Amino acid sequence: MAIVLGPNRYGKAENRLVRVTRDGDRHVLTDLNVSVALSGDLAATHLTGDNAGVLPTDTMKNTVYAFAREHGVTTPEEFGLLLGRHFVSTQPQVAHARIRLESFGWERIGPHSFRRAGDFVRTATVDVAASGEVQVVSGISDLTLMNTTDSEFHGFPRDRYTTLSEATDRILATVVNASWRHTSDISAFEEVKNSLVNAFVTTYSYSLQQTLYAMGKRVLADHDGVAEIRLALPNKHHYLVDLSPFDLENPGEVFIAGDRPYGLIEGTVTRDDAPPALVEWYL
Amino acid sequence: MAIVLGPNRYGKAENRLVRVTRDGDRHVLTDLNVSVALSGDLAATHLTGDNAGVLPTDTMKNTVYAFAREHGVTTPEEFGLLLGRHFVSTQPQVAHARIRLESFGWERIGPHSFRRAGDFVRTATVDVAASGEVQVVSGISDLTLMNTTDSEFHGFPRDRYTTLSEATDRILATVVNASWRHTSDISAFEEVKNSLVNAFVTTYSYSLQQTLYAMGKRVLADHDGVAEIRLALPNKHHYLVDLSPFDLENPGEVFIAGDRPYGLIEGTVTRDDAPPALVEWYL
Amino acid sequence: MAIVLGPNRYGKAENRLVRVTRDGDRHVLTDLNVSVALSGDLAATHLTGDNAGVLPTDTMKNTVYAFAREHGVTTPEEFGLLLGRHFVSTQPQVAHARIRLESFGWERIGPHSFRRAGDFVRTATVDVAASGEVQVVSGISDLTLMNTTDSEFHGFPRDRYTTLSEATDRILATVVNASWRHTSDISAFEEVKNSLVNAFVTTYSYSLQQTLYAMGKRVLADHDGVAEIRLALPNKHHYLVDLSPFDLENPGEVFIAGDRPYGLIEGTVTRDDAPPALVEWYL
Amino acid sequence: MAIVLGPNRYGKAENRLVRVTRDGDRHVLTDLNVSVALSGDLAATHLTGDNAGVLPTDTMKNTVYAFAREHGVTTPEEFGLLLGRHFVSTQPQVAHARIRLESFGWERIGPHSFRRAGDFVRTATVDVAASGEVQVVSGISDLTLMNTTDSEFHGFPRDRYTTLSEATDRILATVVNASWRHTSDISAFEEVKNSLVNAFVTTYSYSLQQTLYAMGKRVLADHDGVAEIRLALPNKHHYLVDLSPFDLENPGEVFIAGDRPYGLIEGTVTRDDAPPALVEWYL
Repeated sequence: MAIVLGPNRYGKAENRLVRVTRDGDRHVLTDLNVSVALSGDLAATHLTGDNAGVLPTDTMKNTVYAFAREHGVTTPEEFGLLLGRHFVSTQPQVAHARIRLESFGWERIGPHSFRRAGDFVRTATVDVAASGEVQVVSGISDLTLMNTTDSEFHGFPRDRYTTLSEATDRILATVVNASWRHTSDISAFEEVKNSLVNAFVTTYSYSLQQTLYAMGKRVLADHDGVAEIRLALPNKHHYLVDLSPFDLENPGEVFIAGDRPYGLIEGTVTRDDAPPALVEWYL
Repeated sequence: MAIVLGPNRYGKAENRLVRVTRDGDRHVLTDLNVSVALSGDLAATHLTGDNAGVLPTDTMKNTVYAFAREHGVTTPEEFGLLLGRHFVSTQPQVAHARIRLESFGWERIGPHSFRRAGDFVRTATVDVAASGEVQVVSGISDLTLMNTTDSEFHGFPRDRYTTLSEATDRILATVVNASWRHTSDISAFEEVKNSLVNAFVTTYSYSLQQTLYAMGKRVLADHDGVAEIRLALPNKHHYLVDLSPFDLENPGEVFIAGDRPYGLIEGTVTRDDAPPALVEWYL
Repeated sequence: MAIVLGPNRYGKAENRLVRVTRDGDRHVLTDLNVSVALSGDLAATHLTGDNAGVLPTDTMKNTVYAFAREHGVTTPEEFGLLLGRHFVSTQPQVAHARIRLESFGWERIGPHSFRRAGDFVRTATVDVAASGEVQVVSGISDLTLMNTTDSEFHGFPRDRYTTLSEATDRILATVVNASWRHTSDISAFEEVKNSLVNAFVTTYSYSLQQTLYAMGKRVLADHDGVAEIRLALPNKHHYLVDLSPFDLENPGEVFIAGDRPYGLIEGTVTRDDAPPALVEWYL
Repeated sequence: MAIVLGPNRYGKAENRLVRVTRDGDRHVLTDLNVSVALSGDLAATHLTGDNAGVLPTDTMKNTVYAFAREHGVTTPEEFGLLLGRHFVSTQPQVAHARIRLESFGWERIGPHSFRRAGDFVRTATVDVAASGEVQVVSGISDLTLMNTTDSEFHGFPRDRYTTLSEATDRILATVVNASWRHTSDISAFEEVKNSLVNAFVTTYSYSLQQTLYAMGKRVLADHDGVAEIRLALPNKHHYLVDLSPFDLENPGEVFIAGDRPYGLIEGTVTRDDAPPALVEWYL
């Protein structure tokens, strides 16, 4: 038996980049959080501290900022591809680069004035292999949605520990965290977001699982370039308050918004002929 | 010398209330975080554990939810007044009630579907005394604004520890936290917010202090019912990246968004004939 | 009527300072978060953007680090005094300096190796006026304590909205946030902490208010140099789970630790002959 | 082409359980955060909203609390096994249960009095398959360690974007997040933690990768029952302050503790004859 080094990677996480593009008086603003992770032939530094193959994480940070100047920033996906390709093509010991990006929205309130939007975060995860393989995953997080009706939950099995009443009208609220894997057309972020939101709004729901599947299916149906989508949807419980001790009815009007615990529904919707994903899709 | 009880209060904090108003298929959503604090003749419980005057904080929670059903929720200010008046009028040992409310915005995306806005939190702090005195303070927090130009900072004193360069074009970014004290017309939240935002956008700034004062002055000039306003504005630094080691210029385009430290500018703008505030304004 | 500038201050917040003192192989570690706020004759920058009196907040940051090298860091209180005195004595337009410090604990695990403690944060707030007046307030935050018995709550008034049962054995858990104002002997932090903890442990409690008062009284009784102490104690509710649907008793054994809402008990314990505080004690 | 449901699971996350065991006056306290996720034959609810196979997440919550009463809580690993085996053995449609647990430490300060420790969180992830396969992974998070010397970083490659100086004496600070997969002896948490800490303290480091490998290797060398270990170690940068503008040297004494960006070193240390892991180890 021997103790050996297994899978590993390293990088600089959470480089906060604000890019201003000036077109006279009118400015355009991009606000990103960029994380770089490289893997490849890194055994030496682990085993002996020999750093001959360890491009400093400080250099990764510098590269993010220099590339923002040299190449500009269009979409998170394209900026991630640019960075990923750079690292695998210039560092021979690097077999794989993973670039993760968060993009924060700002609404224009003047030619060079902006207000942070705050209703969701756009994300991208780009994997680039030295062999040329590329995987682009787009996503969204922190998008909070609520239907105040058109949601039921019943017909579930009951065991010794089941006390839940069947519900024929409940609030359904969630925070959308979704990632979708592209085969092409990586720039349709707004359209995918709209598909997700529309499916949430228009699905009469008998379970959050059903809503999740409807959301994923809608994205795939609307967007040929998306191979599959993964969703993690917390069920943010809203508890109907029992007002009977105060001689009050509560016909679906007054709720406690709970913190913990919460339901957590996770699922993938895919195509039966989806091209295989890189292993990184599953990590 | 004797050890004695000084000022004190108690209550139930952060009651998370979601109120749905159903008008057929079309629902209206209110989402509040309500904190209640009562003070008055509370010495006994502190000194001996005699709780004869201690209305349970659990009862305060129940009252928040029952009142939401009985009276509905219009504005945070009015709901706070309702609660505050209830406690001081029904509990003789309570001399003062302070109700703090946060209101979270949701955008309509369907007749009974909503998306959490996330661009700011509306706040209110209502003080009601048993004597009948009332103070209503409205506010906003977490409103993040940025001007990418029209901001300078120079002409400052230099001492032994000063290394800062004079700036003739810098990013000015802040998170608006503001509270304003009403003498009347407590419902003009959107209008006050617009005054704040407009003043931020249109002020050519030589210091964040100047911007703060302009924002406060604008609110008072636009709204006769506001006696005074207090602002706390962090200076969220955006550092221009030195790209010269890479033979690149950086003409105000690529910035690091810093976390800590940050400047913090706090100030009050008032009227010279403002009616006196309750002491709670200063706490 | 005129619109005028009211109270104001500005500074650099959250300067994260780690100071290593090397005594050969054996190092001593200090880890602080230092915030500086200055006030005085600052009208010009607010009204016209004239910064002749505005020492840059960047200079405050530099001063924190340079002073850490020049003077070392003993206690947070003494380092705060050093900084506060510097600003009021070297900047004639500065009438008042407030220095707030958080100190993070590290346990020694080797001559130059440390483990972050994490069980509380030590705090200090030092006010220095150009007139020579000084106020030193020490404090503690994030100290979480629990008694699993010896806590009751009953004898409270009941109104229409009261449903709480009387409790003769409950969990009492809180997070101690306390600030105490010194007249002398500002370095007895560990001893004051021990007084607080001991009073919490040994007080048979009929209300968290009673425990709060006992904790404050103990500190004043044990420490002549403390003029008064202010405590804010959340009542972190632990709800006994009703296991009767599963034919199980629950004799004070299984609890849900709630997040929100929580009780919040705030109070000051003082001496009837305490010297007057600066107004900043109340802000 | 058809759109199909892919991998999925659901459950109740973050059930906050406090368990008091009473042995006369002396109590023992356990504080857990328990998350349950089940997978199996769940297509119906996704595709049609038929919930005949969907044990409510509310029932999972009830089960956590009832089991804490019926069976007590010994280690997180054992409590997780108990829960996992229950769900796969009583719900025929459930093929796999994953139980994740966080355990929060409390120090005894009296027979029934406790102080939250806060220096780390103990974790466990237990996977139980209906087929009988079991995987137990223990872990630690939020353990913050620092060496103030005995750390160098040099000999790295330099490209166009490299500006970092070689370091022969730097601070090395990290937050240990580690998970180790057991083949046997799942209860040696304290011993594994000690191996991690000791390896961090005693390794003269030429890179955080080297330290990571040393920590993992030490655990495997010391604990035969651990098959492999995965570590994620942020490099919490401490920047030496340039005090030369103030005519001060800074011989490794005054540092800025940075927030973002940070290095992130991830790696697995394994045995060449480790038994294969369930796929869940990689997710």
